[in-house]
Amino acid sequence: MRVLLGSGGIGTEERTALFRSLLIGHYEGCERIVFIPLATGNHEDRATRMRELLGLDESRLVLIDQTNAETQISASDGIYMGGGNSFLLVHELHRLAIVDVIKEAVLGGVPYVGVSAGSNVACPTMMTTNDMPILLPETFDSLGIVPFQINPHYYPGKITFNHQGAAHSHYGESRAQRISEYHVLHDIPVLGMWEGSYITWDGQEGRLIGNAVAFYPDGRSVDLMDGAVFDGSLSHRQSSA
Amino acid sequence: MRVLLGSGGIGTEERTALFRSLLIGHYEGCERIVFIPLATGNHEDRATRMRELLGLDESRLVLIDQTNAETQISASDGIYMGGGNSFLLVHELHRLAIVDVIKEAVLGGVPYVGVSAGSNVACPTMMTTNDMPILLPETFDSLGIVPFQINPHYYPGKITFNHQGAAHSHYGESRAQRISEYHVLHDIPVLGMWEGSYITWDGQEGRLIGNAVAFYPDGRSVDLMDGAVFDGSLSHRQSSA
Repeated sequence: MRVLLGSGGIGTEERTALFRSLLIGHYEGCERIVFIPLATGNHEDRATRMRELLGLDESRLVLIDQTNAETQISASDGIYMGGGNSFLLVHELHRLAIVDVIKEAVLGGVPYVGVSAGSNVACPTMMTTNDMPILLPETFDSLGIVPFQINPHYYPGKITFNHQGAAHSHYGESRAQRISEYHVLHDIPVLGMWEGSYITWDGQEGRLIGNAVAFYPDGRSVDLMDGAVFDGSLSHRQSSA
Repeated sequence: MRVLLGSGGIGTEERTALFRSLLIGHYEGCERIVFIPLATGNHEDRATRMRELLGLDESRLVLIDQTNAETQISASDGIYMGGGNSFLLVHELHRLAIVDVIKEAVLGGVPYVGVSAGSNVACPTMMTTNDMPILLPETFDSLGIVPFQINPHYYPGKITFNHQGAAHSHYGESRAQRISEYHVLHDIPVLGMWEGSYITWDGQEGRLIGNAVAFYPDGRSVDLMDGAVFDGSLSHRQSSA
């Protein structure tokens, strides 16, 4: 398996350059990558921007054809699952009945890239999303191409916001608190991925590019450093590199 | 109708004092208030803390009896719906089949207080929650005792977080962006309520205590000030008080 999952939050030039470099490397040798922006509207705009960013033309980065998606995905040798709203994305993947064909392709070695919502849906379920539940999918079950959960756009601790020049404390739940609520009901570990961070996953072993926190079902959590190597239960060692 | 809905985020002494004062006033004359903390675990602890805060004993603030909830709610003259996880809360309200009895009580004049998730479920649906989807309810439909949606713990703009003494920008979606995603699919206005803020609702007219932003389905938004009076479509005037 060749899986690359990003947290999103690519808001600086440096992060954009890293994103571009990682994707170009990940898709090396791919002749026909199917672009799946079903977590948002504006599909054509999204495809155009991604082609410009990666320097690919329409024949190499192909927008998903909703009338023929299963055949199209089977004939592709790369998959890009874009960000947006995870509830919408999971709903659309099930509506188009393309969960199995994507999963089979990825298990068969087709490179997959997911960012933000596209990383959420690579997990067993979409239950560790931050998104607003703007529609009810028939299930939260997702692709399950990695065996752990991801919380993208993760940040540690509490937040502040600015208004009219003054900083205000926000008292709402932190991401760690929300993940602990998930672990009251579920036993799957959760990787809280800082913005601008990525993981690669080969089916057995993952590697972190950036920063993340591993949250275990027993309530423990561990900061993972750039280069950390981990397995499907998020047991990890720092890279020797 | 006598409805009081809070955003939550009661993290300062001043906010706690306001919360206490508003609730004591709202429940004036109530002899048996049913306390519904189904958005969390630790029901007994929650009830104890709330009794201490409001100066009520066990006979006046009664923890929900899940084996006899419908009869108990019918026999109560006050309802408190506590905060926590809205997915869990909606799931539990439907599992116990107490949506209708709560709605009938409130329509009949029984004072209702909801905070955070308890405000979310007072809306037509729970679709404007910030919570993590830790389980799939059979429906997102909620009590519908107010005709608009609420986004509790609302904050304007983007956020920052602190780590090891440095402030970091977060690039994830703002609340306003998430609400705009909701409005792609739905036509119900959304009230983004700042933490520490409340509304009262009498069935026709609401009044704001604190700060909020009204988001309309056409994409417009308006800052509402303390004392603002509004109707079910969030059309508003500032208070003459």
